[in-house]
Amino acid sequence: MTGPIKYDFKSKSEAAMFSDPTSLQYLTGAHFTAGTALVGPAHRALFVDGRYFSKARRMLGKSWEVIRAPARLGELIGRIKSLGILGLLVDTESISAARYKKLIAASDGLRISEAEGLADRIRAVKRPAELKIIRDAVRLTDEIWTRVRRQIRLGMTEKDLLADIKQEAHRLGAEGMSFEPIVVSGPSTAEPHAEAGDKKITGDEPLLVDMGVRLGGYCSDFTRTPFLMRKRTSPPAWFVSFQKEVLAIQNLAYGLIARGVREPGVISKKISLRLEQKRLRKFYLHGLGHGVGMKIHEEPYLTETGRTLKDGMVFTVEPGLYRAGVGGVRIEDMACLWRGRLEVLTQSSKETAWRL
Amino acid sequence: MTGPIKYDFKSKSEAAMFSDPTSLQYLTGAHFTAGTALVGPAHRALFVDGRYFSKARRMLGKSWEVIRAPARLGELIGRIKSLGILGLLVDTESISAARYKKLIAASDGLRISEAEGLADRIRAVKRPAELKIIRDAVRLTDEIWTRVRRQIRLGMTEKDLLADIKQEAHRLGAEGMSFEPIVVSGPSTAEPHAEAGDKKITGDEPLLVDMGVRLGGYCSDFTRTPFLMRKRTSPPAWFVSFQKEVLAIQNLAYGLIARGVREPGVISKKISLRLEQKRLRKFYLHGLGHGVGMKIHEEPYLTETGRTLKDGMVFTVEPGLYRAGVGGVRIEDMACLWRGRLEVLTQSSKETAWRL
Repeated sequence: MTGPIKYDFKSKSEAAMFSDPTSLQYLTGAHFTAGTALVGPAHRALFVDGRYFSKARRMLGKSWEVIRAPARLGELIGRIKSLGILGLLVDTESISAARYKKLIAASDGLRISEAEGLADRIRAVKRPAELKIIRDAVRLTDEIWTRVRRQIRLGMTEKDLLADIKQEAHRLGAEGMSFEPIVVSGPSTAEPHAEAGDKKITGDEPLLVDMGVRLGGYCSDFTRTPFLMRKRTSPPAWFVSFQKEVLAIQNLAYGLIARGVREPGVISKKISLRLEQKRLRKFYLHGLGHGVGMKIHEEPYLTETGRTLKDGMVFTVEPGLYRAGVGGVRIEDMACLWRGRLEVLTQSSKETAWRL
Repeated sequence: MTGPIKYDFKSKSEAAMFSDPTSLQYLTGAHFTAGTALVGPAHRALFVDGRYFSKARRMLGKSWEVIRAPARLGELIGRIKSLGILGLLVDTESISAARYKKLIAASDGLRISEAEGLADRIRAVKRPAELKIIRDAVRLTDEIWTRVRRQIRLGMTEKDLLADIKQEAHRLGAEGMSFEPIVVSGPSTAEPHAEAGDKKITGDEPLLVDMGVRLGGYCSDFTRTPFLMRKRTSPPAWFVSFQKEVLAIQNLAYGLIARGVREPGVISKKISLRLEQKRLRKFYLHGLGHGVGMKIHEEPYLTETGRTLKDGMVFTVEPGLYRAGVGGVRIEDMACLWRGRLEVLTQSSKETAWRL
């Protein structure tokens, strides 16, 4: 699958430059660990080294000008100019400071302009085919949870459960995990990003599982925090109130988005206000969510300064409350905006507690 | 495991800044997707956001000053100065151009110096404990190959074999693959980095498998290219000569390193000379090798401009010859320099061909 790039180029002699593997994959549909793509109103050129040249020719030869990348940057600039490109837009977020400095130094008359964040921006709005893959990845993740839930046993360690998750992901055809899953129980759930350890699941404690898969090059992301009962007949009060509030915040966000609110800053402010009224602000340790696509964290960011949500965007909605030394609750769905409507993709139930 | 940093700081008020997840993991031994570590003769401070604050305090509180990262860069600079840091060394290779520009703009009297490549450099020389993990990762990779070799059957697709490799990696306890394995057969082996497809393994053709695992946070890398015979009783002449030559280049490199040659440029030149004499230069499409550690590609690079090899470095030696439309051969070992000696870590045999 190859992605389009929407950008208001000033002239036909301009082109945007991308060198990060994610952009190369998005633009060409093929995997390159290194290379330089130039995309403009009159250009579609890909520079790759000897490892990729024949592959790129074979796969992209009809739609791209595939060029063997010269070893030195000065030569690359020369080749770019010989294509008739006079102005280069460079995403300063996806290029290192060292590389950018060398590019400027070698530019030799080629006009270089900064286009901060362009690489992430071109992928922010998903096309129907991309959304289809993401739906499959979310469905697969729900299925992993359905299967793994049943395997949770008293006395197994967090790491055992982590291994089960990976095993099911593999069985169900995932290409891999989109990140190392977080599987923690007890007071460690108070740390939003703790790591699975040798601690045993003892029951009468919360269990936080945050995981996602890679499928067809796209990521999923998912969190549930059930309370596992052994002797208790109900979860403790702190857990009940945290879970209730986390769900309320999630529903507040869904309600706002469904009613047409598209500014993450506005949503974040409403949540802050609610948390302050309930005196829970200090337990809310991270933003509401982030975009998910070829990267596990990408545009749009659902934070106070996040960009306007648009049709075709896919993102997590994952409020959490955490009380140091006691425990925490995070519930994370994936959702999207599609044809003007909010659609929650994740289907797994959010029940409060179950018996071990 | 936490890594040391060797750097010739000019004063006690200097510190090096690291923000990439690999450096954060190396320096602290813990996993953070975001954060800022400051390390200097008199400093060891870690700024992390709400997701990581209590985890960092718990895990690192005795050896690091753990500080909640302010939302704005200006505030971060203020906090850094309040620690008594006057000069900041920034690795311009591991920071984006956009972030670096903002850092300079917000520096407000804090002296910022460029230390290009510092993050990769501090990890280039491995300590005994790191080498031990890498040895285990290489051993596990050899074992995957031993098992998977036996599973190769006529009519299975490249993707089937890829799935088998992942399955065995998982069974043997790998945390994951260090990259998406390359599993290709027939003429596609002429492309150094082709992707596994639905092509069936038909026999009487080469099979190229390039794979590696992640174990204990470290990577392995491995390639073998057997010729699979079905009707033929021996591989074709092109394959025999390519394989012979690839092994000769590998042994040439091993011989030079074993005799004390430490400059990748010198080794590369000797290889080039040999290839020119044999008129094979045009089939040699990539460098000899690269360092392997927490990242699959890192220092040292065994290229014409690569850094001097030192004791404790771990790297691949992976010559390849590729003839477009016909096929290719790559043989990749992992090796290290340890106590002045070259040690080849990969143990799998390199036999020319076997019967399907």
